[in-house]
Amino acid sequence: MRTDKGTIETGPSLLGGVSLPAAAVFEPALAHNLAWMQAFADAHGARLAPHGKTTMTPALFKRQLETGAWGITLATAPQCRAAFAHGVTRLLMANQLIGEPNMAIIAELIEQGAEVYCVVDSAANVEHLGRYFAARGLRLNVLIELGVAGGRCGCRDLEQVLTLAARIHDQSALVLAGLEGYEGVVKADDGEPAAAIRAYAWHMVEAARALEHADLIKAETALITASGSAWYDLIAEVFHEASLGARFVPVLRPGCYVVHDHGIYREAQLGMLKRQPTIKQGLWPALEVFAQVQSLPEPGLAVVAMGKRDIGADQLPEPLRRYREGGHAEQTLSVAGWEIVKLMDQHAFVRLPAAAVGNGGDEVRIGDIIAFGASHPCLTFDKWRRVCRVDAALTVLEEMPTCF
Amino acid sequence: MRTDKGTIETGPSLLGGVSLPAAAVFEPALAHNLAWMQAFADAHGARLAPHGKTTMTPALFKRQLETGAWGITLATAPQCRAAFAHGVTRLLMANQLIGEPNMAIIAELIEQGAEVYCVVDSAANVEHLGRYFAARGLRLNVLIELGVAGGRCGCRDLEQVLTLAARIHDQSALVLAGLEGYEGVVKADDGEPAAAIRAYAWHMVEAARALEHADLIKAETALITASGSAWYDLIAEVFHEASLGARFVPVLRPGCYVVHDHGIYREAQLGMLKRQPTIKQGLWPALEVFAQVQSLPEPGLAVVAMGKRDIGADQLPEPLRRYREGGHAEQTLSVAGWEIVKLMDQHAFVRLPAAAVGNGGDEVRIGDIIAFGASHPCLTFDKWRRVCRVDAALTVLEEMPTCF
Repeated sequence: MRTDKGTIETGPSLLGGVSLPAAAVFEPALAHNLAWMQAFADAHGARLAPHGKTTMTPALFKRQLETGAWGITLATAPQCRAAFAHGVTRLLMANQLIGEPNMAIIAELIEQGAEVYCVVDSAANVEHLGRYFAARGLRLNVLIELGVAGGRCGCRDLEQVLTLAARIHDQSALVLAGLEGYEGVVKADDGEPAAAIRAYAWHMVEAARALEHADLIKAETALITASGSAWYDLIAEVFHEASLGARFVPVLRPGCYVVHDHGIYREAQLGMLKRQPTIKQGLWPALEVFAQVQSLPEPGLAVVAMGKRDIGADQLPEPLRRYREGGHAEQTLSVAGWEIVKLMDQHAFVRLPAAAVGNGGDEVRIGDIIAFGASHPCLTFDKWRRVCRVDAALTVLEEMPTCF
Repeated sequence: MRTDKGTIETGPSLLGGVSLPAAAVFEPALAHNLAWMQAFADAHGARLAPHGKTTMTPALFKRQLETGAWGITLATAPQCRAAFAHGVTRLLMANQLIGEPNMAIIAELIEQGAEVYCVVDSAANVEHLGRYFAARGLRLNVLIELGVAGGRCGCRDLEQVLTLAARIHDQSALVLAGLEGYEGVVKADDGEPAAAIRAYAWHMVEAARALEHADLIKAETALITASGSAWYDLIAEVFHEASLGARFVPVLRPGCYVVHDHGIYREAQLGMLKRQPTIKQGLWPALEVFAQVQSLPEPGLAVVAMGKRDIGADQLPEPLRRYREGGHAEQTLSVAGWEIVKLMDQHAFVRLPAAAVGNGGDEVRIGDIIAFGASHPCLTFDKWRRVCRVDAALTVLEEMPTCF
């Protein structure tokens, strides 16, 4: 018996057969984004290891790999296990591997044939990993994380990187396989973020060269990897310009690109298109949540059956289009002036303009279906056990299970 | 194969055998809370239909019913289906039932023997439900929602309630079974929330009497139901004082009480204990998230492997206790002065006092396990596919699946 929300009940359309609220990924935009980012990475001589934590949707991992991705990036050991269980054999855990139960998960994946990379930034963790994997008779690929002062994890300077590399060298069970960073935590003191991101990427290049110079890289081909979904173009450019040769392969790790968004990444893309005038067209937003008006209790207020349990709320979601229940995809109604003013666990408060309660053919009705866009897709995907892949006609092509 | 996070790997303790982060419910506090709230409802002549949306954990629904709950409250049709699939046969959907796919879910539950109540507040919805359930040859119990001006859903005055009751009367497939409200959206213009809550509860009593007087209640025993987990005492008092007789049975619907919290409900309880001097002891916080220090990159900063994907973030979580990995539950280390200053998707930034990086036996180490408390348990439960029920020794007694 299906017990979770968002499953298909009686038919194949978001306007008729699906229990709402439901999350939908539009196939045309999805296909565009998959091809776009792979072409971008290819053009910059980089491998693509999309961050899988965004969607935790094996059907999307499969699409990313089929489009040419080199592997999938993940944030935790259970996420790696989930991806491997669905056929992903090259796993880049862009995070420290802490805790023996998590080490056990990764050890088991390696025993089953997975190629796993994880990140280190402390002698204590290196010593623990070395001891654990030696006892299991396994070797683990590690990347040194280079962070920034005031940032998140990671070594803070080249000296720390080289010292840690020497500690890794002492552990026979560990293979130093490159350098990892995340530019998303770089702060620009002078208000020029692009310059600060470039400087950080060059700092990574410098660290990679220092490791090579000190002959501390054990892997035959090492990785230099960074990039989320906001500044990937600058990371790719610097790694490309640096021409690190055959020794370091750049790996890009954007995750949110696959469905883009209607918030922070839309904003970030405006900046990217401005600084990259040769790129004429960017990513398209592909993820929406469909929900219904459940109450019209007062003039100017619609309560929609969708809340923090259904959609990311870092920013308040944006009404995009409206349909009648049982209607057709091309018959959209206006949401001009509609605005979510409050989001509870299971309810959205939508402020309506005066026209919305009029008596034209366009008036709002109980049961009207609204498509909402959100910022930061990670925090929408994790609300769902299944996401609908739909075509432009809102026909459900596939129910894609998630594995959070 | 287990692919989701938080599952037991190699042993039975949160300090040794469980992949962290993990969410834990403490059995002693859970048992206390279950008994406490049932006794409270009994003492006020009320039935208890705990809101199940908080936990969506069938093992907890079972405990609530075994302790004496009359039914389980839910917010959506898929939630009702999930509860019914796990043995809950009396379902109070404290929300409008919108959309034919959702109506189909409820119709199927009724066909299978469920006793279902849902809420109405508009003629359009009453007409749609009446038509749909008549076509299915079924009868649906409905409760009229009484809201408040500036609030969420619900009729705004007695006239609207009586008009809607007459519409329900016209639908042979609908049974008017009482009145529903939610005091959590009442605003106190004069800064005296308790008085505003009481006034709202008396308004509900007045509406119930008006419905009875107009002979519009069809059900033999009707319900008058309200209350979340913040003001349940005032609702229970007013419904008790009102002595509505055999015709209306009060039903209380707190949800968060079952694990209480370390935030808004802790605050609310302080208010409850103050206005109820005969109650000497309240609910205990029972839900914590255990996570590990993954990086100590700078003096005064610990990065913990726990983020918005793992714990509710309406308020920043609170560090409660610290343990060494592999240690014992009674060997707690200090988190005095520790404070989460930022939460990302998978990381928490914890600001440490100078003492925490010292070299005493208490110094912070990579791998240290921190227990965190959060506000608003609904938004922690929904991050997990399994929650650990543990004893005071942190031994895992049961992995409880959730069904969001």
